[in-house]
Amino acid sequence: MSSVVNRVKPVQRALALTLRLGTNAEGSRCAAAGGRHFPPGVSKSADPLRAPSRSYCSRMALNEGLFFRQLFESESSTYTYLLADTETKEAILVDPVLETIDRDLKLIHELGLNLKVAVNTHCHADHITSTGLMKKRLAGLKSAIGKLSGASADILLSEGDNIRFGKHHLTVRETPGHTDGCVVLVSGDQRMAFTGDALLIRGCGRTDFQQGCAKKLYESVHQKIFTLPDHCLVYPAHDYLGQTASTVGEERRFNPRLTKSLEEFVEIMKNLNLPKPKKIDISVPANLVCGVHED
Amino acid sequence: MSSVVNRVKPVQRALALTLRLGTNAEGSRCAAAGGRHFPPGVSKSADPLRAPSRSYCSRMALNEGLFFRQLFESESSTYTYLLADTETKEAILVDPVLETIDRDLKLIHELGLNLKVAVNTHCHADHITSTGLMKKRLAGLKSAIGKLSGASADILLSEGDNIRFGKHHLTVRETPGHTDGCVVLVSGDQRMAFTGDALLIRGCGRTDFQQGCAKKLYESVHQKIFTLPDHCLVYPAHDYLGQTASTVGEERRFNPRLTKSLEEFVEIMKNLNLPKPKKIDISVPANLVCGVHED
Repeated sequence: MSSVVNRVKPVQRALALTLRLGTNAEGSRCAAAGGRHFPPGVSKSADPLRAPSRSYCSRMALNEGLFFRQLFESESSTYTYLLADTETKEAILVDPVLETIDRDLKLIHELGLNLKVAVNTHCHADHITSTGLMKKRLAGLKSAIGKLSGASADILLSEGDNIRFGKHHLTVRETPGHTDGCVVLVSGDQRMAFTGDALLIRGCGRTDFQQGCAKKLYESVHQKIFTLPDHCLVYPAHDYLGQTASTVGEERRFNPRLTKSLEEFVEIMKNLNLPKPKKIDISVPANLVCGVHED
Repeated sequence: MSSVVNRVKPVQRALALTLRLGTNAEGSRCAAAGGRHFPPGVSKSADPLRAPSRSYCSRMALNEGLFFRQLFESESSTYTYLLADTETKEAILVDPVLETIDRDLKLIHELGLNLKVAVNTHCHADHITSTGLMKKRLAGLKSAIGKLSGASADILLSEGDNIRFGKHHLTVRETPGHTDGCVVLVSGDQRMAFTGDALLIRGCGRTDFQQGCAKKLYESVHQKIFTLPDHCLVYPAHDYLGQTASTVGEERRFNPRLTKSLEEFVEIMKNLNLPKPKKIDISVPANLVCGVHED
């Protein structure tokens, strides 16, 4: 297993439930690895603004020294996320796109970052990932994707794994439904969730191909995302309406699909009648091998 | 003058230079209104990541209870910004676009906000503002724009004016060059600057029409934006490459035009040979009256 990924064993996980603050490999205080995923009694505050406000100030403390940048690829309306530890310069990139590899590498170079992991939230059908090509251009870079995607990569991620960069980490939550191998990545302080195609802003990923299953998606979102704090910022893999972010609180209240019952949700998803993604026949086979046929 | 705009008189401004923390109209502690715009000895740290890191945590304190959301309009590649006080629900909207008025009003409605001011950073040539139409749909909403733009609006902004929303405010800095009436809006804690077309990410607004002047733009950026702290986030009016934000520190180091000498900058701007904006002949006359001919 790669040194940048912590795999949390059941015993450690139980410990994390009791002791919410632990010490990571570098000796820094950080949110407990593999923390509790399904807290009972999720608060349902009536005001969607209250939570984001808190996340914007005091809850930042755990994320001191975290660099964050959102990037957009307009052809497939994909968001790519660059995160880094400002002290050690270790960085990770979430859902990078082949068409914007030069832009992304230029920014990484300008900022003097050491990109450790390029991770895909799932095997995309609408664009080709740049992780494979990026590995050829950045020595030491490792690719990562959910184990259940069936794709090959240096790191195959499972529930509870932590992707570490300096003193920070993102924790993996498996969220099947859009595809079998979808994962959501949650920051250590649960202030940010990179939700891939499982949860989009006021929407969600389609479930009519690539092992898609509306029932599974509904359960994944409710059990693995809507159990995060209301203030947790939602950063999806795509948006088609110019929305850049949301919060768990907003989606729990205003998502027109996921606020419905399971039965209604399944019915909605059955009747979307979306056209087949233009690039699916080339994207999926390419993304099963990080976007390129590697040596 | 509107009750939501503080106009800072010379005597008050001199006081603000001495006493950096003051008390606003609501009695809350806030950054001094009309604070010092040209601090001598701006630090030039070598590491562009250091500053954003700090802005991401402790410097947030002054902005507790601030809601912030970036929105994008894809036809003109325009960013719109929604800011609100999470306690009082008073909100302002920066550079809203006619095509996305329904999306923006829906979000404002969902979040239960009371939109006080819709402000344009300048008289745009590439899209029509929604401020005029929005005023017809939201009672009490006021439009605002730089006084030197020559446009009509409820509030005509000048250097040092504060646009208040709850306990927060944005301070106006006049930045002529792209147009005569361009303004940059800086948050009270100087953590965010809405730079309009004066400073774009690794670029800047063109200077070949609408009273454009490369020399003026260079001076505006260097005197009014590059004097902000390195960690100050730069939120421009447009980006064409999927970049969502930058920092003053990054632009001072990596902006390919504004890191040059004045003479080189003027030469670069003279030779851009950009096509005329498609919508200029309808946008500019419309934007001179908030996007609609008002009664």
